[in-house]
Amino acid sequence: MTQLVVGGAQMGAIQRADSRKAVIARMIALMEEAASRGVEMLVYPELALTTFFPRWYMEDAAEVDAWFEREMPGPQTAPLFEKARELGIAMTFGYAELTPEGRHFNTSILTNRKGEIVGKYRKIHLPGHVEYDTERAFQHLEKRYFEPGDLGFPVWRNEGVVMGMAICNDRRWPETFRCLGLQGVELVTIGYNTPSVNSQMSAEGLKERLFHSELSLQAGAYQNATYVAGIAKAGVEDGHPLMGGSIIVDPNGFVIARAETEEDELIVAPCDFSACAFGKSTIFDFARHRRIEHYGRITSQAGMVVEV
Amino acid sequence: MTQLVVGGAQMGAIQRADSRKAVIARMIALMEEAASRGVEMLVYPELALTTFFPRWYMEDAAEVDAWFEREMPGPQTAPLFEKARELGIAMTFGYAELTPEGRHFNTSILTNRKGEIVGKYRKIHLPGHVEYDTERAFQHLEKRYFEPGDLGFPVWRNEGVVMGMAICNDRRWPETFRCLGLQGVELVTIGYNTPSVNSQMSAEGLKERLFHSELSLQAGAYQNATYVAGIAKAGVEDGHPLMGGSIIVDPNGFVIARAETEEDELIVAPCDFSACAFGKSTIFDFARHRRIEHYGRITSQAGMVVEV
Repeated sequence: MTQLVVGGAQMGAIQRADSRKAVIARMIALMEEAASRGVEMLVYPELALTTFFPRWYMEDAAEVDAWFEREMPGPQTAPLFEKARELGIAMTFGYAELTPEGRHFNTSILTNRKGEIVGKYRKIHLPGHVEYDTERAFQHLEKRYFEPGDLGFPVWRNEGVVMGMAICNDRRWPETFRCLGLQGVELVTIGYNTPSVNSQMSAEGLKERLFHSELSLQAGAYQNATYVAGIAKAGVEDGHPLMGGSIIVDPNGFVIARAETEEDELIVAPCDFSACAFGKSTIFDFARHRRIEHYGRITSQAGMVVEV
Repeated sequence: MTQLVVGGAQMGAIQRADSRKAVIARMIALMEEAASRGVEMLVYPELALTTFFPRWYMEDAAEVDAWFEREMPGPQTAPLFEKARELGIAMTFGYAELTPEGRHFNTSILTNRKGEIVGKYRKIHLPGHVEYDTERAFQHLEKRYFEPGDLGFPVWRNEGVVMGMAICNDRRWPETFRCLGLQGVELVTIGYNTPSVNSQMSAEGLKERLFHSELSLQAGAYQNATYVAGIAKAGVEDGHPLMGGSIIVDPNGFVIARAETEEDELIVAPCDFSACAFGKSTIFDFARHRRIEHYGRITSQAGMVVEV
């Protein structure tokens, strides 16, 4: 029976002018609080090291690349890894990755309690658009600055638990959770940066956005009998509000920890991963119940095709 | 802009001794109430014509077949079709289907406002088990009495709306909604018979079961930008409680109508199907955002495979 105390390190706003050094100091402060509360696995948000820069339209490649990390750990992130090793905390956080070949990904990394990297995921479901969009209240240029991930949806056994990662918009796609669930995932970690208002429909505000996020995280947990930690970067970044609402969800789909603020805030949930077994062996025993012969469209057809 | 007033005809308990004639009279009474409230499309539950007989273990083939319909409409169901035609109400209901070849399916039928059959669906995700299970608090023998559906997940344009059907346990599987969503579905109708307690875990009671049902229906609606009507057979059938909780959900995932009882009860929601277009053309514009090259496991692998 594997148990881990899981923490979610929600982060408040990071302004465009904030240095990575200042951000890392905040992440370390959250980690020290986590250690004091017995956390063994700590989940930080998507693009945790900087402001959510895809809201800014940039044409200059050097300006864009300044938001990216060329190595992980690098000089600025090394202190976070050292602190994690010292405190014996496994962790995951998101960052913008620039590869030696010049490729750009929205990435998250997973470490064990020795501070060693055990896994990497690159965001597959990039939302938003490529060019400046005058129809939107604000820009969401992830499709401009990142390639879709090329690593699939892997899982790793980390500290005895089958873990998978996803990032932000991935959580709205049941395919994400199912690909992980088919590999026996027991903990899905998902960082996000989600604007508090829909850039294409101002009537869709904070209440609706929180509901959609929670609905997707809870359905993914229940339908795959897995714990899910959905952790926000929140608060007002240079005038642009991001929602909070970080939660940890149990394998029944129930919320067992929830952030109350839009600031740096730690949430904690002791997780007993043997609780995943009941769902996986009964109502969601995939081998007995799934009928893949009828699912063909899901992998043969990307877009909607209306034939009637 | 297509609009329809959708009604959900939740049905209370049907005892084992109740005749089909008595049940049809109740269905007609619900339809007359629906007509008086302007309903144009009416959704009845799964296996609407009889008690939920898969809770009873039977070995005698004739005893089993007595719960099945050999024709649709047949002598006993013809009055329901006549009433629907007279009132100009399109409808869908579930029944146990016995084909001329002797095959058994858990089926639902779809008609237009002229009372003509326009579609048929056979339940794909059969829950439960085949043999008598002494470990369960009660039996759930759908895998004994039915074959898995062989018609896939079709859609039909009915009264101007792209409609798809699913049945009961199908709603817990995001594959169901996605197969329909990929065909542009705008209304998914789902009847169910769901015991109020989990037969394999007595601690999972009414509150949890209602939550799981609602979560699945809401996630399916939101993630495919479609209306969903999930309609129960409820109440205590020969000592066995079935939950109610019938709801109609809008394409944002919000509940817009909800049953309050476990009896025969009509719920009504005017649905403007143009509301499906926003989600389908933005955050869930499948063609722009889905990455089928990473979904392979969903159709290549039925069961869970843990390789780490």
